[in-house]
Amino acid sequence: MDELPGSLGTSASLSLRLGQTIFSSASLLFMSLGVEFYSYTAFCYLVTIMGLVIPWSFTLAILEGYTILVKCHLRQPGILLIIAIGDWILSILSLAAACSTASVINLVLDNGDSFCPTKSCGRYQLSAAMAFLSWFLCAASSLFNLWLLPSL
Amino acid sequence: MDELPGSLGTSASLSLRLGQTIFSSASLLFMSLGVEFYSYTAFCYLVTIMGLVIPWSFTLAILEGYTILVKCHLRQPGILLIIAIGDWILSILSLAAACSTASVINLVLDNGDSFCPTKSCGRYQLSAAMAFLSWFLCAASSLFNLWLLPSL
Repeated sequence: MDELPGSLGTSASLSLRLGQTIFSSASLLFMSLGVEFYSYTAFCYLVTIMGLVIPWSFTLAILEGYTILVKCHLRQPGILLIIAIGDWILSILSLAAACSTASVINLVLDNGDSFCPTKSCGRYQLSAAMAFLSWFLCAASSLFNLWLLPSL
Repeated sequence: MDELPGSLGTSASLSLRLGQTIFSSASLLFMSLGVEFYSYTAFCYLVTIMGLVIPWSFTLAILEGYTILVKCHLRQPGILLIIAIGDWILSILSLAAACSTASVINLVLDNGDSFCPTKSCGRYQLSAAMAFLSWFLCAASSLFNLWLLPSL
């Protein structure tokens, strides 16, 4: 079994997990710092999904840090399959949330300032961008693990 | 090499391709039957992406029909990789388009009928639903081919 960078138990995978945690936390923060986010369904959806991605990525980051430190191997097909499927579902959900948020912001900006004060819109845009980055890292983790799976 | 149902050259794969073609054509038709779709960026984006998915799926459906008829095998790693990557990119793009359209319709419906006549909104919702179905089949094709790839 070769060491595919980015798959479970490598330092690249740990960086991916840390990146996911940071970006999804930033997305959640930028969205929920004000209290107006619940006026749009898409924004509530983004907050919900980021609330799922953060504990998932953080737990896996701790797990991977531990396996790297004690140099044990966690690569059983069952564990890898669960992690790859979880990553895949979360990456689909975060892509959906990021796209919905981005399109709502775009529509709201088109309609002028009546819906959204300029400051908030900038924050919402940053939040959507962070959600896209979090999706990208999540999809990368999922693909690396899925790629490794048939060789186990 | 076992015959994984849904991977390149099987009849299940042909059904997936035909389903993608039908659903993406239906989505494009429902969206563009009226002429109002270009007033929202998300709707234009959906039309663009469905305009990419239709020729891709249709070409592959013809290719797969041909390989099934003449019973030849197309499963070289290079071809399979290109098809899997193409499917993956198109499935991401169609998920993004479907989510954007759905969230815009939701927002527009929330704001009352001033933006969208009731009849058009129903059509747009159907279009988004068809785009979701097309995404699902596209993602399934991509996953089946990606799963087969390391065994070649």
